[in-house]
Parts: sequence; structure tokens; C-alpha cells
Amino acid sequence: MEKLKVIATASALPAQRVTNDDLALIMETSDEWIKTRTGIKERRISLAENTAQLCTKVATKLLAKGKLTADQLDLIIVATMSPDSNTPATAAIVQGNIQATNAFAFDISAACSGFVYALKTATNFLKDEKIKNVMVIGGEVLSKLIDWNDRTTAVLFGDGAAGVLLTANDSGSGVLGSDIKTFGESCEKLTAGTDQALAEFPPQSSKTLRSAFKMDGREVYNFATRQVPESLKRACFDARIKPEQVDLFLLHQANARIIQSVAKKMDLPLAKFPTNIERYGNTSAASIPLLLDELVTQGLVVRGQIIAFSGFGGGLTLGTIILKY
Amino acid sequence: MEKLKVIATASALPAQRVTNDDLALIMETSDEWIKTRTGIKERRISLAENTAQLCTKVATKLLAKGKLTADQLDLIIVATMSPDSNTPATAAIVQGNIQATNAFAFDISAACSGFVYALKTATNFLKDEKIKNVMVIGGEVLSKLIDWNDRTTAVLFGDGAAGVLLTANDSGSGVLGSDIKTFGESCEKLTAGTDQALAEFPPQSSKTLRSAFKMDGREVYNFATRQVPESLKRACFDARIKPEQVDLFLLHQANARIIQSVAKKMDLPLAKFPTNIERYGNTSAASIPLLLDELVTQGLVVRGQIIAFSGFGGGLTLGTIILKY
Repeated sequence: MEKLKVIATASALPAQRVTNDDLALIMETSDEWIKTRTGIKERRISLAENTAQLCTKVATKLLAKGKLTADQLDLIIVATMSPDSNTPATAAIVQGNIQATNAFAFDISAACSGFVYALKTATNFLKDEKIKNVMVIGGEVLSKLIDWNDRTTAVLFGDGAAGVLLTANDSGSGVLGSDIKTFGESCEKLTAGTDQALAEFPPQSSKTLRSAFKMDGREVYNFATRQVPESLKRACFDARIKPEQVDLFLLHQANARIIQSVAKKMDLPLAKFPTNIERYGNTSAASIPLLLDELVTQGLVVRGQIIAFSGFGGGLTLGTIILKY
Repeated sequence: MEKLKVIATASALPAQRVTNDDLALIMETSDEWIKTRTGIKERRISLAENTAQLCTKVATKLLAKGKLTADQLDLIIVATMSPDSNTPATAAIVQGNIQATNAFAFDISAACSGFVYALKTATNFLKDEKIKNVMVIGGEVLSKLIDWNDRTTAVLFGDGAAGVLLTANDSGSGVLGSDIKTFGESCEKLTAGTDQALAEFPPQSSKTLRSAFKMDGREVYNFATRQVPESLKRACFDARIKPEQVDLFLLHQANARIIQSVAKKMDLPLAKFPTNIERYGNTSAASIPLLLDELVTQGLVVRGQIIAFSGFGGGLTLGTIILKY
């Protein structure tokens, strides 16, 4: 077991709720259509607040809940596919905002698997004796990347941020096993924010807009329903446990039907696969810690439980971590 | 010592050279002005080739030089502040292109310190017994982010990619020490590619363009000349060596005058601080591995030497790694 303890969870959501009915006013869609196909009823859309602001709120809450001062932090990782900017990294802005003067900070880009990739990275950093306290935050303002004229993608995504405060200790908590994979050969199935190289020099035209979300929904759905059960099984094998021994499966909240399909393929009760997609939509790297924070707050995740986190999405990326909480 | 061996270095540069005289044709500047203030004579500008394409060329060369097959790779990290897109990550595209079917892949965003941050991350991943072979590539197509009407920044940057193939082994090579810091309180001193959140919902206007490079050159210069010598000293202390014992200091190539100032403050001969900024400009995360690859190719970096890598820039970020090559 790789020792680490989640000493706090926290989240920050934009105030603005956008229901399916709200979307039906600006594009050809309906509450019924969206609900039956995705499980989503509403999502939050960030107005003016960018990713680093949401992540800073999470970071401040994590310190308060974890009873740490900012100067006790050694590392801040933000997993995001919607950073404020190409530079500075969103994590650097957070580090400055909370005055974590002893921490270094960087972003990880692995889309909807970003939180799991960042958690795995943090696990390895915690093997370094100089690194004691690490913050891992998944934060997204995906609304920046949405084409509001494309009803096939605009209805799916939401904004939010959430994270965990981790510490290296001997409490009996830790990572039991993992499975991380990338399928870059399918990278074109889900793209956003593509920034073309110049076509000529000197450049003749002003820059074109970056592309919004483009998704081959069917392919990504097939990828997830096929690969996530395999990843969960491999991670359980790595952890030397049976899938039945996992108390809760916290899957990336991309689509309620994906989650139902995974539960069915694993032959496990759907009750072990909690969801909150109905309220937040797909928040990419934020979805797993957002769900975790809700469950911890509700007392539904408690010490000693075995929790599987599984992310999947753009890249295409896939990742599962089995944690003894 | 954290064991790892650089088994290959490689680089890929766009064919298009843009000299200072070429720039003087499109903006009010001169070869003399640029050379005396920055040391830059020319830079490469990528036409049509995006970051992932340059990084794929590097990855292919690394495998050939390192005599590894793609399926022997366990992890690909691309450090970049100019990824092809928000998703997929540039590393995922590379992973797919070279068919590294057993590797997972993600990007790290830490601007000009990106290569050092990624190397530190790779060092920690190599402590995981399942991770044997890791590729760390710094790749940038910064010309996408340049405001060609701003002569204070447009003359500074160039495009390119370079990287290292690392393996965990007992050859006597490895990381002797490091020092990694972030100064997010100064994050506004150097920004690029800022992407605002929506101002209202439903969004009334089409998306605005992302911002190009903006830099407070004086502040960033002061940061680098003040902080880099301190970081080098702390990293040497961590490595339990004296700065005099370092054979070569491979600093991020941002400005020849910064490098001269650091050498002077360290009271070390400038000959220990090689440069290639005259030919490539500031290539951000690519600059250190680009310089390393040139020196290895020329036989100027050899086994057993002690090499310091030091990155600094947007974030603001800072990082030094002392490697026994």
C-alpha cells in the first residue's frame, strides 16, 4: 500500500444554475431529451469567475477543514482542461492566492481523467521524504469551451471545482492499487480548444478562434462502457482485492447511462455507484472530487472504506485508483 | 541519490528560420537592438506543424537512439505551455502517434520551468516499481501565442521540441538534489493565452480572442537574476555538493544577459553556462532539453558529469535539478 491520507475534501460551485429548460430557450432541445439520454437535470455555469478562482475557494476550504496553514503545503496540483491561461498555470495562481509560500504548483492536463492522473502523481510525490502535504484539485470552467450552437455537446457540460488535501502518514489509509492507461490513437474522438499553428510567416490574418468541444458521442460512450469495467478489474487485481470488496465506485460523471452500464457489466449493485450528474452535468476533472466531497459531507464515505475512483475521457484517457479511505 | 539514467536525448526544430532582420521587416526593431538586449540572432517558427507533431518527432528519435520499442514505454510526460488543444493532451497525441500502447500520458503546465517540473515528476514516478521507462519532452509552438504587433515580446520567442528518455537503473546515474519553487503572487508578470469566463448567460457575444504574451520584462529579469542563483545554491546544498563541483549549468534560455548575470553572481566561469539562445530564442519548456541534446551530440556532456538544469519563468515558477549524468 502507498501510504497517504485524505485529510480534507472540499468543493466550490458557481452560483448560476442552468436547467435543461433554460437551455431549451436557446437551442433546440428539451428537458426530457437531455434527462433520458444523460441523466442531467441542471448544471452550474460560471459567470466571470475563472477556473483559478473556483480552485482558490476549494484550496481555502481544504486548509480550514484540514487544519493546516498555507505554509505547511508542499505541492499543489490542479487537474484541468480549462485553465485560466497557457501561463501562468492555474495551480500557480492558486498557490499565490492562498500564499502557500513553501509549495510548488503545476497543472496536469488529462481531461476527464485529470483528477485520477493527478492523484496518482501526488501519490508518487508523497514518496519523496520532503513532501508531506499535497493538494490535488480538479477545476473546470468548461463553459468557456462550449459551442452554444451545438446542442449535442452544449447540454453535457458544467463548471465547478473540488479537491482533496493529502498527507503522507501511517494511519492505515492509502492507495491499494491502480490502473492508468491512455488511448491516444483515439484522440480525435473528443477535442476542445484546438489552437492551430501559423499557416504562414509573417502571419497574414489575425488569429482564428480556438475550436469548441467536438465529440463523437457514440465512440466515447462505447470506449467508456467497454474500458471502465476492465480498468476497475485490473485496479482491483493490482490491489489484491475482489471488486465485491470495494464499498463505493466513484466514477467520472459523464453520463448516467455509462455508470449504469458499468455497474451492470461488473454485476454489482447500482447503489455502489453514487451519482450527482443530475445536478452538475459533466464537470470533467472536477466530477470525482465533487462527488467525493458530497459523500464525505453526508457521512456516506467514512474511514476504513475501500473507494474506487475511475476517470475516463478526452485523450482518450482512463484511470482507476483504489483507495483505502 | 534518486536513480535514473538518461538513455537518449533528441530534438526537433521547425525548418523555418526567422532572423532579426526578418522581424525588422514587419515591426520596428533591429538586429542590433535584439542582439544586444537578448543575445538572440534568429529563432525557428513552426508553419502548420503543431506542438504534438514536433514532440512526436522527438519521441520517435528518442526510441531509435535509446534502442527501445514503443511498447516498452510506461509513461510520456509533455511539458508545454502551448499544447495543441485543451483536450486531448499533447502527450496523449504523441502516445497515439508512436503507438506506445503500454504508456499513459499527460501534459504538465509550468511554462519555462516545465521541463524541470516534468523531470522531477518523472523522478518520482520512477520510484514506482511498475514504471521503468519514461519519456519527458518539452515542446512549444509559442508562435501561436505571440502578438506580432508587440515588438517587446514578439522578438523573444521561438518554436521547438526536445526531450529525454529515462530509465530506472543502477548505473550510478541519478538525481543528486533539487529545488522547486513557485511564486504565484507574481503570476501577472508573465501571461499568455488567457481565456476569460463567460460574462453572462446565455452568452450574448461570440468568444473574444485569447490574449497573447504579456510580460513585465524588467520584473521577470529581476526575478530570474535574483532567484536562479539562490535556487542553484539550494539545489547544490540538497545534493551535498559545492556549486564548483557542477560541470555544466544548463539554464533556461530566456535571455543571454540573465545567464551572464547568474554566472557572475555564482562567481563561476561563464564557460560552465552554455547557450544556444542565439539560434533558437526562448523556447520555454523546450529550451533546456534542446541545449542538452546539442551538448550530448557534440560530446560536451558525457557520463559521470554533474549537470544542473534550471528553469524559470511564467507562474512565476523556478526549478533546479542536479543530475549525475
